[in-house]
Amino acid sequence: MPVSPDELNKLRQQIDGIDSQLVTLLAQRAEITAKVGQYKSQVGLPIYVPEREAELIAKRRVEAEQQNVSPVLVEDLLRRIMRESYHTQNVKYLCANPQIKKVVVIGGAGALGRIFVDMFKRSGYGVTILEQDDWPNADKILADAGLVLVAVPIKLTESIIAKLTHLPLDCVLVDITSTKQKPLAAMMDTHSGPVLGLHPMFGPDVPSLVKQVVVVCHGRDADKYQWLLQQIGIWGGILQHTSAKEHDDAMVFIQVLRHFCSFVFGSHLAGENPDLQQLISLSSPIYRLELAMVGRLFAQSPALYADIIFDNKDSVALLTEFSVKFNQALQLVETKNKGEFIKEFCKIGAWFGDYSKQCLVDSRKLLLKADDDRTLKVDQSPS
Amino acid sequence: MPVSPDELNKLRQQIDGIDSQLVTLLAQRAEITAKVGQYKSQVGLPIYVPEREAELIAKRRVEAEQQNVSPVLVEDLLRRIMRESYHTQNVKYLCANPQIKKVVVIGGAGALGRIFVDMFKRSGYGVTILEQDDWPNADKILADAGLVLVAVPIKLTESIIAKLTHLPLDCVLVDITSTKQKPLAAMMDTHSGPVLGLHPMFGPDVPSLVKQVVVVCHGRDADKYQWLLQQIGIWGGILQHTSAKEHDDAMVFIQVLRHFCSFVFGSHLAGENPDLQQLISLSSPIYRLELAMVGRLFAQSPALYADIIFDNKDSVALLTEFSVKFNQALQLVETKNKGEFIKEFCKIGAWFGDYSKQCLVDSRKLLLKADDDRTLKVDQSPS
Repeated sequence: MPVSPDELNKLRQQIDGIDSQLVTLLAQRAEITAKVGQYKSQVGLPIYVPEREAELIAKRRVEAEQQNVSPVLVEDLLRRIMRESYHTQNVKYLCANPQIKKVVVIGGAGALGRIFVDMFKRSGYGVTILEQDDWPNADKILADAGLVLVAVPIKLTESIIAKLTHLPLDCVLVDITSTKQKPLAAMMDTHSGPVLGLHPMFGPDVPSLVKQVVVVCHGRDADKYQWLLQQIGIWGGILQHTSAKEHDDAMVFIQVLRHFCSFVFGSHLAGENPDLQQLISLSSPIYRLELAMVGRLFAQSPALYADIIFDNKDSVALLTEFSVKFNQALQLVETKNKGEFIKEFCKIGAWFGDYSKQCLVDSRKLLLKADDDRTLKVDQSPS
Repeated sequence: MPVSPDELNKLRQQIDGIDSQLVTLLAQRAEITAKVGQYKSQVGLPIYVPEREAELIAKRRVEAEQQNVSPVLVEDLLRRIMRESYHTQNVKYLCANPQIKKVVVIGGAGALGRIFVDMFKRSGYGVTILEQDDWPNADKILADAGLVLVAVPIKLTESIIAKLTHLPLDCVLVDITSTKQKPLAAMMDTHSGPVLGLHPMFGPDVPSLVKQVVVVCHGRDADKYQWLLQQIGIWGGILQHTSAKEHDDAMVFIQVLRHFCSFVFGSHLAGENPDLQQLISLSSPIYRLELAMVGRLFAQSPALYADIIFDNKDSVALLTEFSVKFNQALQLVETKNKGEFIKEFCKIGAWFGDYSKQCLVDSRKLLLKADDDRTLKVDQSPS
């Protein structure tokens, strides 16, 4: 049935009406989830319950199919709505161990330290921050601590841990440095009570700990710090247990190599000096994303990335090996040996296995989400 | 006011009720947008109208603030809903030039060629595909063509263009190769009628052309192919005009360097052979995304990427220069020269300018969206 121009306006008004109803529904939903959050913080239920989330989505997907609506659309919308409610439910958290008299966060005024200070406070712990100027009073501050969390820059971690020789014996000593072997050894050395190494795999800009990974490296007396792991669970964090050595080996790949390559990529671009604006306008979504992954590095702390790259003892060996691989591949291009390149490509693909296909699927989904935000105008000007 | 356990179930039922209403609203909205799509295809209005989109979002953001709902949440949801409606509105498109008797797509059975065949057909054009086996009949197929679109692999483009010596004089000759200087020169050489170079900046998996960039390089007789640019606009594409040389210069950065680096990164990882599953589980969202950008390469065609990297005459020079920068930076790490690294870091940051801050903001938004899909269970097992 054809539609007239007048009717187009009517249809658009109907769309506006539906979208208004959507806003009202969201307001109603937020009111209810606020109550749920209140209840959860009273009884200490975690904000993020994977099973409830899965069940809620599954039911709505069935309804969507019955009404001829894309279940993927409904799932995407519900996940986005739930993200909002996770981050606004966070009024208070249950305190997993009310017997802890005092939590001391060394470096608690720093970017990442501040998050933990906030989380502990919102869970009802008494929190004291120990910063550079407070060292003269350190003995007094630390005397009755039930937990000491070291949240200082990598290069200071070991020297600061070395100062913690007078902690109460039952005090839990924890660090959140991005390397684990050396800080953990230093903590075992300086303190004979419970010791734990953590590496929060997120930056200081996360809106909450919900769905954020925290790597856990066991030190000593696990039963004495179980409450802390429970507490992180209550905050919504995802715990990944591993050994300090396995952690550090993985971080060379995860942190050093990627950051270093992004640095070189930026260095090369700046040296060649192409028109950045034009590069961006001529890019596909995937290139824009890749360029953004490089660009974002340079909006962050140079000292932090210098520490990550320079302070890892395996960096030079790893980067040298990378350079060898780069030059081998470059030689294939120089000698126009496409056959060998394709052979190597397939070998690497086999090593990645099904993961590469998963990457393709996931990145496509993500690129569609990135595209949602595009607001570029159609360029109607002639060439 | 405290909440009891019984009430928690009631609250959850209320949430379920609201989510059901959401599904119903989406079904109603889809019915209306289908009618809008029908009207648009009748009168040739583009599916994607940036101004209407902006206005619609702005109005709902105001309502959201009035009702204490996050306007960012409302905008994210509306953009996701509109994406769905763009891609399902595509019943038919207006034909921008009904006088075109026949569109011939050479390589129209290929991945990208197929998209254009589909688009032209849905816009009411008569479309004929010319594949390898059809060349004996090529003269007959091409005799009455109003538009010939060359959609074959890069390495075949020029040789196939060279065969097109007998096109009707008013026939528009277009290619969609990912390099532009050589194909454009070849088309100008072989055909004396209207000539146009296009580079669609998207892969064969896009659900529609809405918000996708198409690079436009002028060849000859622009007035004779304006209708085609209009047609791409009707499909929702975003046109970016540039010269073939500027395009190719940009593509060395955009395509060659990134793909080559991803290749080397994969090659290096496969060589070092770390536990991939562990790498992923220990990663932060940003690292998972970066790893996925590498992994996805190897789920795609080796020959395509070999062509992109090997067939660009500037590849060797650019990659050699990159290798120089890599080794310069590596030397800083070897000599523990953090100071110089930080100086260089700041210089590069200055070159990127405000773009790097924008990258950080955009990537954070995107990472939050990526996190929405996380379904990892909390690992409760002891270390």
